[in-house]
Amino acid sequence: MTAFARRAERVQPSAIREFLSLATDPRITSFAGGYPDPTLFPVEELHEIYASLLTADNASALQYTASEGLPELRALVAARLTADGMPCTADDVLITQGGQQGLDLTAKLFVDAGDVVVTERPTFLGALIAFNPCEPSYRSVPMDDEGMDTVALEEVLRTTDRVKLVYTVPDFQNPTGRTMSLARRRHLVELAERYDVMILEDTPYRELRYEGERLPTIRNLDPNNLVVHLGSFSKILAPGLRLGWALATPEVREKLALLKLAADTQNGTLNMRAAAAYLGGHDVEAHIASMLPVYRHQRDLMLATMAEHFPPGISWTRAEGGLFTWVTFPEGLDLAAFQRDVLIPRAGVIIVPGTPFFAERPEAHHARMSFSGVPDDRMVAGLRAMGSLLADALG
Amino acid sequence: MTAFARRAERVQPSAIREFLSLATDPRITSFAGGYPDPTLFPVEELHEIYASLLTADNASALQYTASEGLPELRALVAARLTADGMPCTADDVLITQGGQQGLDLTAKLFVDAGDVVVTERPTFLGALIAFNPCEPSYRSVPMDDEGMDTVALEEVLRTTDRVKLVYTVPDFQNPTGRTMSLARRRHLVELAERYDVMILEDTPYRELRYEGERLPTIRNLDPNNLVVHLGSFSKILAPGLRLGWALATPEVREKLALLKLAADTQNGTLNMRAAAAYLGGHDVEAHIASMLPVYRHQRDLMLATMAEHFPPGISWTRAEGGLFTWVTFPEGLDLAAFQRDVLIPRAGVIIVPGTPFFAERPEAHHARMSFSGVPDDRMVAGLRAMGSLLADALG
Repeated sequence: MTAFARRAERVQPSAIREFLSLATDPRITSFAGGYPDPTLFPVEELHEIYASLLTADNASALQYTASEGLPELRALVAARLTADGMPCTADDVLITQGGQQGLDLTAKLFVDAGDVVVTERPTFLGALIAFNPCEPSYRSVPMDDEGMDTVALEEVLRTTDRVKLVYTVPDFQNPTGRTMSLARRRHLVELAERYDVMILEDTPYRELRYEGERLPTIRNLDPNNLVVHLGSFSKILAPGLRLGWALATPEVREKLALLKLAADTQNGTLNMRAAAAYLGGHDVEAHIASMLPVYRHQRDLMLATMAEHFPPGISWTRAEGGLFTWVTFPEGLDLAAFQRDVLIPRAGVIIVPGTPFFAERPEAHHARMSFSGVPDDRMVAGLRAMGSLLADALG
Repeated sequence: MTAFARRAERVQPSAIREFLSLATDPRITSFAGGYPDPTLFPVEELHEIYASLLTADNASALQYTASEGLPELRALVAARLTADGMPCTADDVLITQGGQQGLDLTAKLFVDAGDVVVTERPTFLGALIAFNPCEPSYRSVPMDDEGMDTVALEEVLRTTDRVKLVYTVPDFQNPTGRTMSLARRRHLVELAERYDVMILEDTPYRELRYEGERLPTIRNLDPNNLVVHLGSFSKILAPGLRLGWALATPEVREKLALLKLAADTQNGTLNMRAAAAYLGGHDVEAHIASMLPVYRHQRDLMLATMAEHFPPGISWTRAEGGLFTWVTFPEGLDLAAFQRDVLIPRAGVIIVPGTPFFAERPEAHHARMSFSGVPDDRMVAGLRAMGSLLADALG
C-alpha cells in the first residue's frame, strides 16, 4: 500500500480510548465521561418536534440545504449570541458539526505545519486531537484559579515565532473547570492585538454556571475581532444532534464555510430544523435554568465527598460551572498506572488520567473527574473506595 | 489579522455557487441540482421511527456514541456490502457524515501537499473541493462510454511521480452518468497494484440502476485491498440525514476513524439510530426498487426531449442510472457565458457549466444536467426553450 500522508503520524489512538469503553459496563462507576446527563435532555419536546417535521408535505427537512447551515437556525443562534453581548446577524454564524468541527475548521484555516498553537496547561484533549492533523508545534501556558496566566502568555508570544492561534476554554474549562477572570480576558485581547495572533474561544460549557457572575466572552471584549468564537448545542440541548456554531468576521466565516463544504457538505438538515424549532418554540433559557440545580448538586456532592474521604496531599478545583473538577495528586503518583493497577481492578472506578491534556511536557499526577450523570449513591461509594485506595497508595 | 494557512488559497468560492441559489426560485427550471427527488423520501416510515426513538426511556439516542459509528448501523451496512460482493464485518465499516466526509478523510490520510491525485476527466466537483485543502497536484484521465480510459491511466502512472490516489465514481458517474466497464475495472485494479497507488471508489449512485446489469465493485475485484470504498445513504434514504460509509482494510479504517474523531467526534446518534431502524425494520431494497421507475422516466423524458428540440452538433451521454447526463456542445460555446447571458435571462433555465468538473485543463463547452425531480411539463418546456436558444446561438 502507498504510504500515508505525513499528518497521519500525528493521528494516533488515544491512550484513554481503551478504558473509556469500560464506561458502559454497569459494574463500573465512571467519573471519566464528559457527557451531559441524559435524563436532562428535552426528549418529549424533541419527540413532538421531529414528529411535526417529518410529514409528507415537508420532505425538504430531509433534503440538502446550505453549507453555512439552515438560515433560521443561524438567525436564532445569532439572536442568542447578541443577547450574550456579541452583536451579530445570521450571516456571521456558521453552523458546525458540534464544537469539535469548529476546532478542526479553525485549525485548517490558520495553521500550517510548524506553526505554533498556544494552549492552556492543561487543555482540552479533543482540541489537540483536532489540531494535530495540521501538524502544529505547541506551547502551553500555566493556569491558576483565574485561568490562563496571561503574563506567562506574553512571554511565550514575545519569544516564539509563528504563533497563529491562542486556544482557550474561558468558561469552566475542560479539564480543569476553571474560569478566566475578566482582567485576564482583557489582557488576552490586548496581547492578541499586540502580537497579531488569533484567539480561538471555545465555550461549550458557558451556559452551565452554577454560581458566581457571568463574565463577558472574549469575543465581546475584542473591538478588532481577532476572535473565532465557538459554541455548542451539546450541553444545552443534546450532543447526539451534533450541532454547534462558529462566530467570526465575514472574511473568516466565509473561509470556514468553504472548509465545511469541503469536509462534509453541510450539517444534517433535519437536526438543524429540529434545533430551530426548539429554540423558536420553547423556552431554552428555562430549560437551561432547570438543569443547573441538578449539576450543581452533583458537583457539590463530588467535592464534599472527596473532602471527606480523600487523604491529605490531594487538591482539586472548585468549578463554578461545567462538568469537571481537576484533581492534583502528590507528584510521584502516576494516575494512569494507579487507575490500571488499582482503581479499576479494586474499586471499579474510572477517571481520566491527566497526561493527555498537556500539549507539551505532560504531568502524570492529575486526573479529570466529571460529576455529571453519576447517581448519588454510586458517586459516594465510588469516591469513598477511591479515597481508601489512595490512602493505601500514598501511605 | 494573522495570515491564513497556505491551504486556504486552495479553498475558493465556487463559480457555480452564485447561480445555484437561483435553484430555489419558483420561476426557474433547474437542471443544475444533484439532489434526489424529495417526493421519494420515506417520510412516513421515518416519522414513525423518530417518534419511537424519542422516548423518555431512550435518551441515549441523543447522547454521544462511538466515533466509528453506531455498532448496529455498521453491522447493517456491512451486511449490505457483503450482499453486494464485498465480504466484511461491522468492524470494517466506518460511518461518515455523508459521502463527502469519506472523500475528505481519505485525502487527509494519503495526500501530502504536492502528492498527485488522478481523477477522471471530468470528475465530481465535490471531490476536488474535498481534496483541495490537502494541496494535491492533479492529473486527469479521459473517459469514454466505458468510463476511465485505463490505457491512458497507465501512461499517467508510468510517467508521474508521487501518485497516491486514483479517484473514480465507477457507477453512473457524477457528472457524466457513465459507468466503468468490467474490463476497465479489472485493469484499474491491476494498475493500482503494479504502481502501488490506492483507488478511491465512490459509489453514491450505485443503487440507482435503471437498465443493464449490475457490475461488481472495484473493491470486489481487488484481492489485495488497495481500495477505499465509499457509499452514501443520500440517494437511498435521504441526504438531510448526512450518512455515508467507508469500507477499508483494518489499518486504513482505523486511521480514517481517528481522523473522523479529530474532525467532528462522530455522526449524529439519533440519525444513525434512525437509519439502523430503517434498514433493520423496513425493506430498503423494495424502497429502492420503487424509486427506479420514477428516475428512469425522468431520464427518458430528458433524453427524448433533447433529441427532439436540441439543434444538431450537440451530444449527450445515456446514463444507465444515477441522476445526470453530460451534454457536449460545439467547441466554441462557453456554457457559463451562455447560461449567464442567454439561458437564465431568456428561458429561466439553469444547468451546471462543465468547467469546474475538470481537475486540470478545463473545457467550457459541456454541461451537467440532472433529470431528478423536475416535473414533466417543466422539463419539456425548459428543454424546448433551451433548444430554441441554442439553435439561435449556434446559427
